[in-house]
Amino acid sequence: MSLVIVGTFNLDTIETPRERRERIVGGSGTYCCLAASFFTTPRIVGVVGEDFPKDTLELFNTRGIDTEGLLVKPGKTFFWEGRYEDDPNKRTTVATEVNILKGFRPQLPEHYRDADILFLANIDPDLQEDILAQVKSPRLVAMDTMNYWIQTRSESLLNVLEKVNVFFANDEEVRMLTGELNLITAGKRLLEKGPKLVVIKKGEHGVLLLSKDFVFAMPAYPSETVVDPTGAGDSFGGGFLGHLDRAYSYTEGGIRRAAVYGSVMASFTIEEFGIDRLRSLSSDEIESRFAEFQKLVSF
Amino acid sequence: MSLVIVGTFNLDTIETPRERRERIVGGSGTYCCLAASFFTTPRIVGVVGEDFPKDTLELFNTRGIDTEGLLVKPGKTFFWEGRYEDDPNKRTTVATEVNILKGFRPQLPEHYRDADILFLANIDPDLQEDILAQVKSPRLVAMDTMNYWIQTRSESLLNVLEKVNVFFANDEEVRMLTGELNLITAGKRLLEKGPKLVVIKKGEHGVLLLSKDFVFAMPAYPSETVVDPTGAGDSFGGGFLGHLDRAYSYTEGGIRRAAVYGSVMASFTIEEFGIDRLRSLSSDEIESRFAEFQKLVSF
Repeated sequence: MSLVIVGTFNLDTIETPRERRERIVGGSGTYCCLAASFFTTPRIVGVVGEDFPKDTLELFNTRGIDTEGLLVKPGKTFFWEGRYEDDPNKRTTVATEVNILKGFRPQLPEHYRDADILFLANIDPDLQEDILAQVKSPRLVAMDTMNYWIQTRSESLLNVLEKVNVFFANDEEVRMLTGELNLITAGKRLLEKGPKLVVIKKGEHGVLLLSKDFVFAMPAYPSETVVDPTGAGDSFGGGFLGHLDRAYSYTEGGIRRAAVYGSVMASFTIEEFGIDRLRSLSSDEIESRFAEFQKLVSF
Repeated sequence: MSLVIVGTFNLDTIETPRERRERIVGGSGTYCCLAASFFTTPRIVGVVGEDFPKDTLELFNTRGIDTEGLLVKPGKTFFWEGRYEDDPNKRTTVATEVNILKGFRPQLPEHYRDADILFLANIDPDLQEDILAQVKSPRLVAMDTMNYWIQTRSESLLNVLEKVNVFFANDEEVRMLTGELNLITAGKRLLEKGPKLVVIKKGEHGVLLLSKDFVFAMPAYPSETVVDPTGAGDSFGGGFLGHLDRAYSYTEGGIRRAAVYGSVMASFTIEEFGIDRLRSLSSDEIESRFAEFQKLVSF
């Protein structure tokens, strides 16, 4: 088993109605690899500047994450600033500084190329394509994206979409990409474009999985404490693919359980700012929340 | 077992982005009693004018619904006109004509007064209060409402809320009534006001049940054919309470299954205009969709 994750490793400034945090560690790759590390030993690909906190790199190593593909280069780490309204589903990007990510062309370390699972987390679709060409014969390729790439680079994005098995997106992105309001219909349209599985993340409304063979739906964990929604989707992807990599077989049952593990990881991430909750998390807490999901929907 | 339902029996004009239907049968009592009739033999309370279609009254009788409490009086039936946007969750009231409902003070027929379950479906909260005073010792009292009563008569509504065991409301109404965006927190606030169970209907996002002892969540049936969302919530209530009346005991397990039966009935209602789908429905179809819900969330 081996899971390779390509994504961004950021410094984020986050403002919620209650609090503001400056330049905390974030990014799709960060959330995703930390979430996955509770299930498997992910290998990460990306680039950070010298201002990226050393203790986070140490955390990655402590958690068994292979950081050979994470370059540390002179310059400033990719920066994102976002603001949340009272409704935590509503997010505004205040600022983005590409910094070190400009012109970045990731190269997979040799021992990454035999990855079983490749996750192209949210990053420039051209970089996703680049990486895809570098793996030998992955058993499963998944991708995520964001509204920015749909609006500005939909052609590149659709090129990648053709070549992946699993497509992660949130409800807004799915509607934007297909022009279809009904999520079931929208998901089916996306299935026609290549992927065998479409995973629609709906935030507080849970998750919806569509394949040709089955539909799976799961409500979100009933959280009262939504401190910082940043990284929920990426943590979902990490938990989902981490579980699949650990299970090593990608059956319907395994995929359903993966979606629950994804939901578990997302539900923890939003309880504190940035990666704080993932830092303190234990495998026992994960299994216990998995059981809570079972109880939540049992009838 | 006996379930008494108080609600409105309307003529509705419905406009969706695709089609317009004039003066079709609707109303909270209508949807609710038809949905419940697949589980028990409901007794209904309400008033209609002479323009209310005879074949609907015959349908009620055919389906075993006790119509002794449904008065037919000279005059025009309560009329409602609504328009749906492309997003079926967005509804605008175009017109309301109170007509025969004006000054209506429902009297329960003598044999209704020993009801086990009393459902105060969406209607003027003062009428709900009136009816509540007329039943002897119901084992369970449930109520529904709508944004109109929250905006114009919140005090009356809160008076009724104190006295009921189960409160049905949609997400928008729950937020409006509590001023709280987080549905779990909002639901808990409502639990403090009297009811033992709060049932939050979230349309395409499913349903959320909160009590002091448990939380239950169920996604909606993955429908592509949403022809007319009118009556989904009332059908939910009918299926929910119809099942509880049939089961006769109100255990946690029974309540969870009731919420699934409610979701099943709502999912059928929206497949055609007005009550058309409920007219043609069979118990086999209901059980088969119940099983589909089991599959939908199994992991």
